[in-house]
Amino acid sequence: MNYPNGKKVYTNHHVTNKQPQDQFSNRGMTLEKDIDETNRYYLNRGRCVVHKKPTPVQIVKVDYPKRSAAVIKEAYFKQASTTDYNGLYKGKYLDFEAKETRNKGSFPLSNFHAHQIEHMEHVVKHEGICFVIIRFQAYNESYMFPAVKLFPYWHRQFKDGRKSIPYDVIKSEGAIIPSGYPALVDYLSVIDQLFF
Amino acid sequence: MNYPNGKKVYTNHHVTNKQPQDQFSNRGMTLEKDIDETNRYYLNRGRCVVHKKPTPVQIVKVDYPKRSAAVIKEAYFKQASTTDYNGLYKGKYLDFEAKETRNKGSFPLSNFHAHQIEHMEHVVKHEGICFVIIRFQAYNESYMFPAVKLFPYWHRQFKDGRKSIPYDVIKSEGAIIPSGYPALVDYLSVIDQLFF
Repeated sequence: MNYPNGKKVYTNHHVTNKQPQDQFSNRGMTLEKDIDETNRYYLNRGRCVVHKKPTPVQIVKVDYPKRSAAVIKEAYFKQASTTDYNGLYKGKYLDFEAKETRNKGSFPLSNFHAHQIEHMEHVVKHEGICFVIIRFQAYNESYMFPAVKLFPYWHRQFKDGRKSIPYDVIKSEGAIIPSGYPALVDYLSVIDQLFF
Repeated sequence: MNYPNGKKVYTNHHVTNKQPQDQFSNRGMTLEKDIDETNRYYLNRGRCVVHKKPTPVQIVKVDYPKRSAAVIKEAYFKQASTTDYNGLYKGKYLDFEAKETRNKGSFPLSNFHAHQIEHMEHVVKHEGICFVIIRFQAYNESYMFPAVKLFPYWHRQFKDGRKSIPYDVIKSEGAIIPSGYPALVDYLSVIDQLFF
């Protein structure tokens, strides 16, 4: 995504801990861009109303030039207290996080932080539809993995120390998400089979 | 809200078009702060899961100092494409915007922009619970006004030119929101009567 002046624009916190020249920095954004495009398509087709939340930013210094827009001169990326995506499908509340990994054999739990898991637990408790979208870049496969199946792995890591979910588990207990066009990550097509 | 270094911190776009010395700049934040505190209370009590979305910011320039956090050096406030608040209540999707006015006789529609109305129309179409919270500072009254009752006034302004909703209409067709503690804006207490 580029700003009119051509400078690179960062619009999500996935890149906040990466150097701009990080050779993988754009990889981290691929899944997000695919989901954003899918959500635009869903919205236009009246399938659902799902948006990515803005990147949380702590604004410290703002300039107010006369007769022109306010300019933020100092700000810091904040850790999100919820997931990145939420919205509405068939009258129900939808909530999910999307992550991709270059690992082949498992998905590292370090991709999530405690606040997000806590939020997902709240959502499940209040009967929202909650899941994560996990993409394995090596296989170019994206899976829908229900939050209720993620929780045990998250909590278990503090006991047995296993800090990842095996690929086979995600494959067998999750649902592979078909990729089409313009629905690049057609998650609604598998949501019914997992949640309805 | 203050940053450790004591500098004023702006965390919502209500203030973005105001000068820091604007004598009313903190008024615009009162309702939001009250709702944030109410939402924290609701969450802790397991009543609902509602969060304010982060302020949308267009990030143009980021510095990455060695061994310290990334610093945003140039960014601009973006217009929100959705409402400020959404979440989950009794398994249903909840979506609302909160605005306050110093007017006594009516609420100016200029408090909303077309994207927000469009978003609320999508939410209603998909059977979400959608409303606005309108506070009249002069009476210190906050009302829940269903989105479906807002739409006709919004669209009518482009025909008959009336650019506001009369106070009496909001009073009669909306529901006054009780203010208690810690539920400063106890909107859940009136939601059932309007939506369930």
